[in-house]
Amino acid sequence: MATQFNVAILIYPGADLMDFTGPAEIYNAGQRSPDSPPPFKITSFSFQNPVKASNAVLTYVPDATLSEVSNRLSDFDILVIPGAEGFTIDDMLATPEGTQVTQLIKKFSELPPRKETGRRILQSVCTGSLILAAADVLRGRTVTTHHMFYDALPGYADKAAGGESGAKVVKKRWVYAGKTEGNVEIVTAGGVSSGIDASLFITELLVGKETAAWASEIVEFDSRGEDGAWGVRK
Amino acid sequence: MATQFNVAILIYPGADLMDFTGPAEIYNAGQRSPDSPPPFKITSFSFQNPVKASNAVLTYVPDATLSEVSNRLSDFDILVIPGAEGFTIDDMLATPEGTQVTQLIKKFSELPPRKETGRRILQSVCTGSLILAAADVLRGRTVTTHHMFYDALPGYADKAAGGESGAKVVKKRWVYAGKTEGNVEIVTAGGVSSGIDASLFITELLVGKETAAWASEIVEFDSRGEDGAWGVRK
Repeated sequence: MATQFNVAILIYPGADLMDFTGPAEIYNAGQRSPDSPPPFKITSFSFQNPVKASNAVLTYVPDATLSEVSNRLSDFDILVIPGAEGFTIDDMLATPEGTQVTQLIKKFSELPPRKETGRRILQSVCTGSLILAAADVLRGRTVTTHHMFYDALPGYADKAAGGESGAKVVKKRWVYAGKTEGNVEIVTAGGVSSGIDASLFITELLVGKETAAWASEIVEFDSRGEDGAWGVRK
Repeated sequence: MATQFNVAILIYPGADLMDFTGPAEIYNAGQRSPDSPPPFKITSFSFQNPVKASNAVLTYVPDATLSEVSNRLSDFDILVIPGAEGFTIDDMLATPEGTQVTQLIKKFSELPPRKETGRRILQSVCTGSLILAAADVLRGRTVTTHHMFYDALPGYADKAAGGESGAKVVKKRWVYAGKTEGNVEIVTAGGVSSGIDASLFITELLVGKETAAWASEIVEFDSRGEDGAWGVRK
């Protein structure tokens, strides 16, 4: 059986629902048929159960608690951190649960690649990159985020670094932001739907072009490319 | 306060998660700020609680039961029916709950426009149109569905009609499939992510261009247009 990549997806109260369902959809769509081995195994987790996303629009039962995922963090190849409204993130970061989340991200960023797969990816979607910044894993990195938060992100990184972090923001669908010392690769996506493009990119990176093309066709979504523009038709 | 459109979103076991989270994201994103009135109010419902979507990838707690929504069906302006794998839909349609779903769709299609809004929209995403077909509301209509089910859809409509239904399928991102005798407007979306485009179309139809453009910008997703192609980059 082909190697399976384990994906842990964080759902926190108010997390934007497409920020995490976009990646969940793409990683699930990589499976060729109900009988073929799924390339990804998805585990949702939270510090609340049930947990309401996006203005309480949809309610989720996570597969695992934050502590459970933290206790077996090295089993996961991909950690997905979704975004939310700025005030939702600020409120969470000010709580003990917010601290647990940033500690989890930091801990993940310091892991060696998983033995079974040789890889480890830290993926943010939308303002999830503010949480990565608050976890102090973006020093000196060029990243992206939701377009309304380009100016805000460096402040989160500077605060975590206790000074000038060197974090820079560019307008992209996604940015491959390099590797940590432990060889964890960081991929930051732009706002909301950009997480779909970034997940297709990660699928190609880990599993290959053919599987990414398959997922793309299943969901009728061609990647808009790293530089894919938006807002141009209005 | 501006008129609010009530959206009922069906979640059944195995329903494709982006089929319903796409519309949920767009209808939620139409709100300009946390203090401004949301143009849409979303109610998820199911005949299971909790209910697992897409290969059991994510688990949902619906806001209401199918019976509750059925009992106050005339309160809803938009009814969203997501798709799933073909066998998942066939299995559901063969159960008493499947019959309840098709009866609900039929009943909704026969309602007059809601007094408060003057509108009523029946929206399918992906293979959700097979369920609409099975509910016998697609006679003589031109619709769309997931691209792997273009050939299968007419069979569902013919079976429900007990003969030649006249239902036709075209390759589109979405199709505005006309009005029922009761003036319910039917909008069918193509596969999975096409539900995002269709929901932007419905937002524009009901609330206006400006709100649709706002939602589009928030989620960094420009509508690909009714004729928007895919699969061209592979």
